[in-house]
Amino acid sequence: MLSFPSSSPPGFSSYNGGGMNGTSTMMDFLEEPLPGVGTYEDFNTIDWVREKSRDRDRHREITSRSKESTWALIHSVSDAFSGWLLMLLIGLLAGSLAGLIDISAHWMTDLKEGVCLAGFWFNHEHCCWKSNTTFTDRDKCPEWKSWSQLILGHGEGAFAYILNYFMYVVWALLFSLLAVLLVKGFAPYACGSGIPEIKTILSGFIIRGYLGKWTLIIKTITLVLAVSSGLSLGKEGPLVHVACCCGNILCHLFTKYRKNEAKRREVLSAAAAAGVSVAFGAPIGGVLFSLEEVSYYFPLKTLWRSFFAALVAAFTLRSINPFGNSRLVLFYVEFHMPWHLLELVPFILLGIFGGLWGAFFIRSNIAWCRRRKTTKLGKYPVLEVFVVTAITALLAFPNEYTRMSTSELISELFNDCGILDSSKLCEYVNDFNSTKGDDLPDRAAGPGVYTAMWQLALALIMKVFITIFTFGMKVPSGLFIPSMAVGAIAGRLLGVAMEQLAYYHHDWAIFSGWCSQGADCITPGLYAMVGAAACLGGVTRMTVSLVVIMFELTGGLEYIVPLMAAAMTSKWVADAIGREGIYDAHIRLNGYPFLEAKEEFSHKTLAMDVMRPRRNDPPLTVITQDSMTVEDVESIINETTYSGYPVVVSRESQRLVGFVLRRDLIISIENARKKQDGIVSTSVIYFTDHSPPLPPSSPSMLKLRSILDLSPFTVTDQTPMEIVVDIFRKLGLRQCLVTHNGAGCSKPLCPTWP
Amino acid sequence: MLSFPSSSPPGFSSYNGGGMNGTSTMMDFLEEPLPGVGTYEDFNTIDWVREKSRDRDRHREITSRSKESTWALIHSVSDAFSGWLLMLLIGLLAGSLAGLIDISAHWMTDLKEGVCLAGFWFNHEHCCWKSNTTFTDRDKCPEWKSWSQLILGHGEGAFAYILNYFMYVVWALLFSLLAVLLVKGFAPYACGSGIPEIKTILSGFIIRGYLGKWTLIIKTITLVLAVSSGLSLGKEGPLVHVACCCGNILCHLFTKYRKNEAKRREVLSAAAAAGVSVAFGAPIGGVLFSLEEVSYYFPLKTLWRSFFAALVAAFTLRSINPFGNSRLVLFYVEFHMPWHLLELVPFILLGIFGGLWGAFFIRSNIAWCRRRKTTKLGKYPVLEVFVVTAITALLAFPNEYTRMSTSELISELFNDCGILDSSKLCEYVNDFNSTKGDDLPDRAAGPGVYTAMWQLALALIMKVFITIFTFGMKVPSGLFIPSMAVGAIAGRLLGVAMEQLAYYHHDWAIFSGWCSQGADCITPGLYAMVGAAACLGGVTRMTVSLVVIMFELTGGLEYIVPLMAAAMTSKWVADAIGREGIYDAHIRLNGYPFLEAKEEFSHKTLAMDVMRPRRNDPPLTVITQDSMTVEDVESIINETTYSGYPVVVSRESQRLVGFVLRRDLIISIENARKKQDGIVSTSVIYFTDHSPPLPPSSPSMLKLRSILDLSPFTVTDQTPMEIVVDIFRKLGLRQCLVTHNGAGCSKPLCPTWP
Repeated sequence: MLSFPSSSPPGFSSYNGGGMNGTSTMMDFLEEPLPGVGTYEDFNTIDWVREKSRDRDRHREITSRSKESTWALIHSVSDAFSGWLLMLLIGLLAGSLAGLIDISAHWMTDLKEGVCLAGFWFNHEHCCWKSNTTFTDRDKCPEWKSWSQLILGHGEGAFAYILNYFMYVVWALLFSLLAVLLVKGFAPYACGSGIPEIKTILSGFIIRGYLGKWTLIIKTITLVLAVSSGLSLGKEGPLVHVACCCGNILCHLFTKYRKNEAKRREVLSAAAAAGVSVAFGAPIGGVLFSLEEVSYYFPLKTLWRSFFAALVAAFTLRSINPFGNSRLVLFYVEFHMPWHLLELVPFILLGIFGGLWGAFFIRSNIAWCRRRKTTKLGKYPVLEVFVVTAITALLAFPNEYTRMSTSELISELFNDCGILDSSKLCEYVNDFNSTKGDDLPDRAAGPGVYTAMWQLALALIMKVFITIFTFGMKVPSGLFIPSMAVGAIAGRLLGVAMEQLAYYHHDWAIFSGWCSQGADCITPGLYAMVGAAACLGGVTRMTVSLVVIMFELTGGLEYIVPLMAAAMTSKWVADAIGREGIYDAHIRLNGYPFLEAKEEFSHKTLAMDVMRPRRNDPPLTVITQDSMTVEDVESIINETTYSGYPVVVSRESQRLVGFVLRRDLIISIENARKKQDGIVSTSVIYFTDHSPPLPPSSPSMLKLRSILDLSPFTVTDQTPMEIVVDIFRKLGLRQCLVTHNGAGCSKPLCPTWP
Repeated sequence: MLSFPSSSPPGFSSYNGGGMNGTSTMMDFLEEPLPGVGTYEDFNTIDWVREKSRDRDRHREITSRSKESTWALIHSVSDAFSGWLLMLLIGLLAGSLAGLIDISAHWMTDLKEGVCLAGFWFNHEHCCWKSNTTFTDRDKCPEWKSWSQLILGHGEGAFAYILNYFMYVVWALLFSLLAVLLVKGFAPYACGSGIPEIKTILSGFIIRGYLGKWTLIIKTITLVLAVSSGLSLGKEGPLVHVACCCGNILCHLFTKYRKNEAKRREVLSAAAAAGVSVAFGAPIGGVLFSLEEVSYYFPLKTLWRSFFAALVAAFTLRSINPFGNSRLVLFYVEFHMPWHLLELVPFILLGIFGGLWGAFFIRSNIAWCRRRKTTKLGKYPVLEVFVVTAITALLAFPNEYTRMSTSELISELFNDCGILDSSKLCEYVNDFNSTKGDDLPDRAAGPGVYTAMWQLALALIMKVFITIFTFGMKVPSGLFIPSMAVGAIAGRLLGVAMEQLAYYHHDWAIFSGWCSQGADCITPGLYAMVGAAACLGGVTRMTVSLVVIMFELTGGLEYIVPLMAAAMTSKWVADAIGREGIYDAHIRLNGYPFLEAKEEFSHKTLAMDVMRPRRNDPPLTVITQDSMTVEDVESIINETTYSGYPVVVSRESQRLVGFVLRRDLIISIENARKKQDGIVSTSVIYFTDHSPPLPPSSPSMLKLRSILDLSPFTVTDQTPMEIVVDIFRKLGLRQCLVTHNGAGCSKPLCPTWP
């Protein structure tokens, strides 16, 4: 007897329907399928094998036809290149959207602090470009007025401060409320980071509207709002979602991809790569991210195309040039000093910190999200957002490192102190007689650095906790930037500490040999970067893609080893505490059907042990190939809820002939009753080639061979479960029949197993 | 009836042998297998499914035991980390070997021209480092004597020239003959690039000794000889082979990898990555190369580990620092000028050239190799090498661009002309009043450039033809460097032409707007680089890895678009002429069993069309599960040559019970006859759980259930061939049974199909 878990309702899976009736008929069959055939219902899992072989048939048909006429030849060529065209479009669209988001987010973030008189649409930086002030205090220019300056006419005094504070909070609340209301009202799917869902979709699940145009529009807008509201969230995850929406929507331009779920998923993988590529300006990292993190079925062709899409996107973004500097990458860093082997110790410490934080974050975030799902807290998303935003804003304003946007903070932390640096982090006790060129020697930290340390410590504590409550709210929220910020702060703190240690105690044994008096041996910025990598790795469990992204940020192979050491340590530590990364955890939390490719089976089970029917269930419901009448079949359909039935030779010898799906049976019987005359309840249904010998008196018979799947996947009841799961993963099956000595004792497995 | 193509003889494949006798027995079974069980003969294909599940069992056992004692816990931990340790060792070994090869090749190459008096073990560059001459003419220093200077005392005059010429040729012949004799005498497997064979091995084929220690030693030595003999070949491909040898040899240190063919192949993929990583100093490119080009089964874990190995190797090489400069990469280039969109036209032209050359090269090289295999030309490898070396050397010496080692040539071509450049390629008509900073404006080419152009053109023609005959000789020969050289020359020529065009005709419409008078708008070095990428792509059909390698060489994302445009064009052009890359072509030429994952099926066939027995063959040979005697089975074994037999319930109902392999039958029957008493020719063999009811008079029976594979892979006779092939590819099967309505009409498929 067959039964499917609810998450995978029936679906048509006679993918070689034409296999046995010869090519021609199959082609017709492909061209004009019965209504409802070949589509999936919402929240279904697709049948990869079938989709792929459908595409192969399509391809074969086109190539065979291409010899006939020039027109067909052109068609086949255009068909071959449509994929590349699609990638180009995705890259362009994703790149420009990312640019748009960056620019507007930048502007609105500054809007919280003040406005530009030269034109309110200028952000702080542009505003001061206009005015010809000196380079150093470019952020103080007459055109730019803080709110207090605008309203009171001056920016000094407690009252002005309070006014600015007030405006900051008000704007933040305004933005976030607008965001949550938009999401709630128009596109509920637009919330969150979207990567867990995209992972699930790429694994073959169908969530209608999740990648639709409304989600795209709303997510783009609300992402800007959420980011500029100063909440502790990033735009990277959502950008992947946005890019995938672009991909999905653009798929509709090409029949090849519109009609085939498997092909479309290839496009989506590429789109995800483009998303990361624009998020960080790291094309290669993006492709590897898509390969390592989100994708399920990733053929080489897709690799190459994703790379193309990622590049196009990156360059579109660059030509829009949102960061003012014509840099591709989000955080451009340039370090001058090599690192010393001994520094691996602090780097590994950072790795451990990252791992611990990652595990801690995942646990508490999941716990919080579960409470949100279960308790009635979840009923008031707007209130929740309001409260969290208020708290965040109130805590953020007094501390300049939390007041500035998180990405600014990160790039300041990554930054290595040059001579001209005006930042507080670089307020060292200068002795310019010992400066040579650009790289300054280690120096004693000035008061500025010490205050910065305190503020950073506070910022660290705040971010650690607030992020837990922020991620998972009903606004678009990415996780990369906050985790990186946490790591970067911790790293910078450690880096400065090391630097001071090296300065004051350069005679210690550990420093001897590589860090002499007045030399520049410690680069705090590098520590920040390593810390960021460690925390990001701890949360997402990315490895290669993470390191490659960081490598593309620095553009120097020198620093790969520290990054790698940290990433590896953090992954090991985090894995030791909890196996799954944040995305898998959320997938499980939301109960999406996802067959994790990484997990191992701890105990040994056989197909026999997990199959239905269980030993003491009623026997398997089967349909015989040429002895059942229409009403028999209809009664079976009505009595049982299973999505398909094995067809056997006869009840006595339960030899498996094929597999027929409930949906097809219903459709085609109805069809026959309507169109085909002489079909009555007593007429026999047969799945064989030739009609069975029956008395001439009997009513005309119904041949349903065309809907019979003659090559169902079968395993013997002795097959170990790992192998069965392997088959499911690698071939992307939806169900599988279990045979015992060739006879049906069938049971389904489906991608949600186990 | 079962029959296997000769390339996959029997192998034990009851991978879930313990599945039905419970875990404990299986563990014993795993610990002490019957002699000869679980191993493969030479030139066999392995059974991935079985290997993987064996490893899973091992892993499961270790984890289950780890709870028992601390010692077992330590063992499990060390087992978990052994993979990383192995990667570390591979990286170190491969890196140091690469360094060794570089240094000695460099020295021996210079030895052809002269010797250092300060110490004969110095190469030209080191020799002149010793002497404190000015920077500009560092290659002319008193310590370094050309042979004529050494012998005649002076380096001028025709006679001196002839003497140098003579010495050059003699050394070249000496090196190459030594190489070919070593290969012929000690390790025939050490010849060629090795990448086709490694591809085959990674796909599951077994070639004993191909990755053995002798191959390693001889290939390392002969590679140095071959490279320094000045033949038109590179060391990149062979380095991959060397790295794989290291991997394979080091595997013997760890049971986990020594005993399991599948796990070992994971290690080999990583080793291949390390090889490319040291060849170019491009770790990420190496990993992607392994993923895209050579690997067959590449789980994510392997990706991460390969990356680790590649990095370690790269840094080991760097710390050895063979190139004098502490650079990681083979050709370090730095361009100052961005490229203009219009330049895409010449870049695409280069792409077309690369594609055409690639296709032409593959065709003619394969034709030549086939002739070598078929005609008696192949009987005189030494003579062949002698002749080719002689021709190469004679043609090479007069032209300075062919005289220098190919990698030097490439880096000179890639190099952008600075102010201090003394190379002939940079002999422009200088007007220093217009020079600002380091980047010179476009200038009129001086006489030096023109002569260089002519010499380069000649070098191009020579390399194009000589490479065809060189690749495939009985010496280690890589293909990357020669192809890159061809492309680089073509690119440089085009680049200089463009530059002059822009200089003299900067008023033309195409240049207007981006290339004004006295501006530096064309970078010939970039053209060389793009050309190199195009040609390499045309020959190997690499895409992503190629671009990434090039990206790592330049280290700037700016130039990815030109590289990508060229690589794509060349791939498309080359694919349009001939589908397969050089490696696949050589695989097919040598007739290795390799199931190409990329190829598509053009026509629609079903499993029943290709299965054995064919329709009019004698019926299938089967073994019944409990009614055959020892002699029956033995007679079947003697009469047939098939590697395995399906076990059925009874002759009447051919219901499939399982699959038993000839080899196991033979082993276990012999075993039983020896050890188990009462086993005579008339005693019944049964595969069931319980012995069949027989009269008490009958002799004691032989139970062989333990060697019965109870979960053979089956497909129905209606399954489309693409799906069957898909199953074979993705699961790595060795055979597959075809059933008709649950009854055996079995046929094998094996990875060599089609």
